[in-house]
Amino acid sequence: MITGIAERRYANNNAAASDMAIIAAEKAIEDAGIDAETIDQLIVAHNFGDVAKYTAQPDAVPSLAARVKHGLGIKNSACVAYDILFGCPGWLQGLIHADAFCRAGVAKRCLVVGTEALSRVVDIYDRDSMIFSDGAGAVIVEAQAGDYNTNGVIGSNAASFAGEDVNYIHMGASNFPDANLCTKYLKMQGRKVYEFALKHVPLAIKACLDNSDVAITSVKKIFIHQANEKMDEAIVKRVFELYGIKHAPADIMPMNIHTLGNSSVATVPTLYDMVRKGVLPGHSLDTGDIIVFASVGAGMNINAVCYRV
Amino acid sequence: MITGIAERRYANNNAAASDMAIIAAEKAIEDAGIDAETIDQLIVAHNFGDVAKYTAQPDAVPSLAARVKHGLGIKNSACVAYDILFGCPGWLQGLIHADAFCRAGVAKRCLVVGTEALSRVVDIYDRDSMIFSDGAGAVIVEAQAGDYNTNGVIGSNAASFAGEDVNYIHMGASNFPDANLCTKYLKMQGRKVYEFALKHVPLAIKACLDNSDVAITSVKKIFIHQANEKMDEAIVKRVFELYGIKHAPADIMPMNIHTLGNSSVATVPTLYDMVRKGVLPGHSLDTGDIIVFASVGAGMNINAVCYRV
Repeated sequence: MITGIAERRYANNNAAASDMAIIAAEKAIEDAGIDAETIDQLIVAHNFGDVAKYTAQPDAVPSLAARVKHGLGIKNSACVAYDILFGCPGWLQGLIHADAFCRAGVAKRCLVVGTEALSRVVDIYDRDSMIFSDGAGAVIVEAQAGDYNTNGVIGSNAASFAGEDVNYIHMGASNFPDANLCTKYLKMQGRKVYEFALKHVPLAIKACLDNSDVAITSVKKIFIHQANEKMDEAIVKRVFELYGIKHAPADIMPMNIHTLGNSSVATVPTLYDMVRKGVLPGHSLDTGDIIVFASVGAGMNINAVCYRV
Repeated sequence: MITGIAERRYANNNAAASDMAIIAAEKAIEDAGIDAETIDQLIVAHNFGDVAKYTAQPDAVPSLAARVKHGLGIKNSACVAYDILFGCPGWLQGLIHADAFCRAGVAKRCLVVGTEALSRVVDIYDRDSMIFSDGAGAVIVEAQAGDYNTNGVIGSNAASFAGEDVNYIHMGASNFPDANLCTKYLKMQGRKVYEFALKHVPLAIKACLDNSDVAITSVKKIFIHQANEKMDEAIVKRVFELYGIKHAPADIMPMNIHTLGNSSVATVPTLYDMVRKGVLPGHSLDTGDIIVFASVGAGMNINAVCYRV
């Protein structure tokens, strides 16, 4: 099995993306031990808004960030809540936003959530739909006093390719011959996406490490968007080849695609959460470890963040 | 007529929000006299994505920013293209993002577009639909060397209210009794929105001016989201009352709602464009003038930016 997916999760019929986002956000707030009323920016990454089960119409008015803020019961009006759409790399781009806001003095504490219920937008007559799943992940990002590089975001890189790439992931008609042509589903030119990712993601990771002045040999783990196991393995192999290293360390890339599928914006934060909590066999993190997050998806967009735990 | 709307524009049947955005962006790039390949961040504010005529399903995969970048033919992959959803204040929030990115050193030149085709999401059986229109506006934002406050953004303020306010503007069923309940339309609790705006927008503008260390008497023009003429007049009156001034200057508030309606994220940039180009009778701007932009909309979100021309 090339994708590496053995099982995946769908949201309950009565839940939508914002409901999953609220659960993930509550856990992140509890884990960080912060008062939710002290959050300055509440950033929610998604691509389809809330899509009720058995309907095809996304609903993002009010924004999912407003719904999450409402669900968390945050009263502080200075907590600015907005949504970002950036394909699957949306959550990681939200992290880049949060970091920029902290550097610019716009925010001191941000909640960054990624949530998506792809089960609501897939075409069940399309075999690509097998890989897609539902999920949400969230983190708290804080500005820190003193030397910026003691821990947290060391450097980042982002890129958007909107030539012919713009349609590699898009909305299109069902494969079912008599389907209503007005209803569109998530469609992927799988081979094109694979080749695109293999060409551009390793370069983006290298650019991120260069920006961060970090050697590849200092990187403990690489958390890649869980799109396809074979693709992710090929990407990591190529990253090391860019540095003249033939074999990537065997334990460098945690994967949870086998059990969680491709949940779009949610894969990277949920994967990081599992490793951080020591529930993914063979992977662990210690304070001071340098890691890389990277993602690729519709746009086509790519990003990478170098982070010290 | 309370709303002040005499006429409004709808996009052509074969055009969607991203098509209008491309036209606005092209004009902004030409007006700024820049090379589009030098844009670092391409930010598109909207709330409904592209909705084809006679359909109800928004389409934002790939993001509208990716579509705009594609339409502009920008090749530079370092031009990061993303969408922001923040209700009607989305374009102004994009401007706040661009300013933060410039301050953080993340970007030197940003394109900020607001685009919306509300005609595609209104319920024609709802009289509120009268006020809504289609439109797009765009600006180029640049980091500048030297003293930050010589011109450009002086200060800003943003707020999100997600208590019971969260549903003042939302998606709901048609007023038509036999309508399909699965298809949702833009709905507004008009009275609630009016009272909310009148209470909170003046305070947001004052907070923005305080952040900017600018006196209300130094402000030449206030560009408010064109939601409702009477509401906007009441807001400006209350802003001056907060400073103990009984009568706002007669020419402080340009309005184009009479001819362009409420085009959501597009009202503020199109209004500014008209005044800047001297095509709105009785209003003009000179270099060095201090102005305020302010908006309010679904979320409920509010923002204000103090800007030196």
